[in-house]
Amino acid sequence: MRILILGGDGYLGWPTAMYFSQLGHDVLVVDNLAKRQWEAEVDGAPLEPVPTLRHRVRVWNDVTGNEIGVAIGDIAENPRFVYRVFGEFQPDATVHYAEQPSAPYSMAGRERAVYTQRNNVAGTLNVLHAMKRHVPESHLIKLGTMGEYGTPAIDIEEGWIEVADAGGRRDRLPFPKMPGSFYHLSKVHDSHNIHFACRIWGLGATDLNQGVVYGIATDETELHSELLTSFHYDAVFGTALNRFCAQAVAGVPLTVYGAGGQKRGFLNIRDTLECVRLAAENPAEQGEFRVFNQFTEVFSVLELAELVRDAAAHLGIEAQIDHIDNPRVEAEEHYYNPKNDTLLALGLEPRLLSDELVETMLRRIADSVDRIDRATILPQVQWRIGSAVRR
Amino acid sequence: MRILILGGDGYLGWPTAMYFSQLGHDVLVVDNLAKRQWEAEVDGAPLEPVPTLRHRVRVWNDVTGNEIGVAIGDIAENPRFVYRVFGEFQPDATVHYAEQPSAPYSMAGRERAVYTQRNNVAGTLNVLHAMKRHVPESHLIKLGTMGEYGTPAIDIEEGWIEVADAGGRRDRLPFPKMPGSFYHLSKVHDSHNIHFACRIWGLGATDLNQGVVYGIATDETELHSELLTSFHYDAVFGTALNRFCAQAVAGVPLTVYGAGGQKRGFLNIRDTLECVRLAAENPAEQGEFRVFNQFTEVFSVLELAELVRDAAAHLGIEAQIDHIDNPRVEAEEHYYNPKNDTLLALGLEPRLLSDELVETMLRRIADSVDRIDRATILPQVQWRIGSAVRR
Repeated sequence: MRILILGGDGYLGWPTAMYFSQLGHDVLVVDNLAKRQWEAEVDGAPLEPVPTLRHRVRVWNDVTGNEIGVAIGDIAENPRFVYRVFGEFQPDATVHYAEQPSAPYSMAGRERAVYTQRNNVAGTLNVLHAMKRHVPESHLIKLGTMGEYGTPAIDIEEGWIEVADAGGRRDRLPFPKMPGSFYHLSKVHDSHNIHFACRIWGLGATDLNQGVVYGIATDETELHSELLTSFHYDAVFGTALNRFCAQAVAGVPLTVYGAGGQKRGFLNIRDTLECVRLAAENPAEQGEFRVFNQFTEVFSVLELAELVRDAAAHLGIEAQIDHIDNPRVEAEEHYYNPKNDTLLALGLEPRLLSDELVETMLRRIADSVDRIDRATILPQVQWRIGSAVRR
Repeated sequence: MRILILGGDGYLGWPTAMYFSQLGHDVLVVDNLAKRQWEAEVDGAPLEPVPTLRHRVRVWNDVTGNEIGVAIGDIAENPRFVYRVFGEFQPDATVHYAEQPSAPYSMAGRERAVYTQRNNVAGTLNVLHAMKRHVPESHLIKLGTMGEYGTPAIDIEEGWIEVADAGGRRDRLPFPKMPGSFYHLSKVHDSHNIHFACRIWGLGATDLNQGVVYGIATDETELHSELLTSFHYDAVFGTALNRFCAQAVAGVPLTVYGAGGQKRGFLNIRDTLECVRLAAENPAEQGEFRVFNQFTEVFSVLELAELVRDAAAHLGIEAQIDHIDNPRVEAEEHYYNPKNDTLLALGLEPRLLSDELVETMLRRIADSVDRIDRATILPQVQWRIGSAVRR
């Protein structure tokens, strides 16, 4: 298959590109490299320096003999670039990660809220129009987020819900959304736009509502030290487990926001790749808008912190858990029962979170302990205040 | 009260401004006058030439002695302007009409789709941030659309729905949305963003999901010939009833899209003003996100055409109804039962559509029959093709 990876320089995009290349597919990665600017803006460098995208592609070619194509351009601001990519590459499947991915970044004041929504929404609209023009029978695999749903008091279905009215009439409608940041809202907007494009243009799309991803390595990143992916532990781009591991290694307390009863879906970065592969190998029909909930386990944030603390203890690291004022506005005790049946039915075999995995991550992070900048780990952005990041 | 009208140069904004001014409120209107450019782009001039906003404000002052303030600026592109307006005027209520309001315009190719969503979404985000900064206890009255819901097979509640899951747990969640154009989608995005701002910042907002508005006159527009509002009959900015009336007067067939079984909520422009007043006089609580469905009657498009044909016959005009290929993608036969209880409970007394009203409109349009440009009435934009408007 010809696989187009939008956002191929990112934490998930780069490992996905290598994974599909290793499987023998023809891969083109697109990125505008904006994430590297956002990182600098908020003072959040990856744990280990990440070589440029083209350099990593050369290393990949040296190590495996496989070629990955690169096109540098902005899918939100340069529609002619987007049309040219789709027209020339003619992808069978497009994996779309190319969005501003941080909730705290989107909450750091008006400018970044507007930027996040304009960027993410316009990029996806451009992709939909380019697909319609050049490859209407190809398959869009879009990365959404479990955060689109929020934390309703009912089970969270996969994108759709059967609803009845007082008169007993029934319909299957999009699952109601209660997202928790301007970033999460941008994904809700995308979902509505993509669904519409499937309805009126007959495009086929899979919206992967992904949980919080953890992990530092995949089979492909392990092939060479320069094939690594960007690993963030800072408060803006670092996800919970990754951040806790960095805190344990750095010898600072693991900072749980509020009570820590917030439950979320989580998955290993290696399972992200499996899920995207399963979606690509089992494409949506023309006109079909599918939603898969993409996570393997549910934990509360406090459970995660305790898991890291206990794994650290095995390595002789004594980690402490601190509860800090929650910078976000979110329920800290709530019902949470999201479904994830579809990917399991397609054959996903979850790599569940284990002490061993956490210990591996801790050891890997310990190799770069001198590079951990403790000043970037504590949250600077308050949901209620909307403070800018380190203005 | 201090009432800020965003989009005060438009079809509904200008009559709303005069209405609140006449009621004794302190009114400031904001507009970037972009609608006048969009009209020129798509070759769709209003039936009668509309004097500039500042000219109409002077006439209003001459006629009534009341003053209406004017601030010309772009709420989507100029955030400092938005903050200044909110900071200096300190509105008690903000009525927000300032969006690109046409579904066909939004479907006329990629550029206009992206423009519509970026413009509408960013304008509303800027307004929310400016409210939070300067008037967090003021009331946002946002014009949404009944088109946000689409045509589900269940009753359409007012913005919220009680949902139960298989385990019998229940929650009240946002009503699922299935909008029918990139314009309608922009309003769905706005609704999610506003709801979020109410949840995290405690703002109070009323989302008025309005039906299709018809009518050419209000009590205030009738006070002077130069106090008119822009009346559109073209395929891009004209709404169904207004367009049918112009076709009857022009002696061309009334063009029903497809079978004409599409049902929609409708209301008189005078009732739009009443509804907005009722919302302003009964504001949302802090932190509350209310949705009112704002329409008074449901008709199918064919019923509307027949109503115009019959009223025209009373005036000796023989109007014919043509079914043309539907340029839109929409169900032409469907269940439709939207609720509109809240505004009625607040005291709305609907002006129902009558032969007399249609005859009045027909006579009024007949005064300007020579100005009707028949070339602009037939649809140029196809939902499936996304053709540009007269490129």
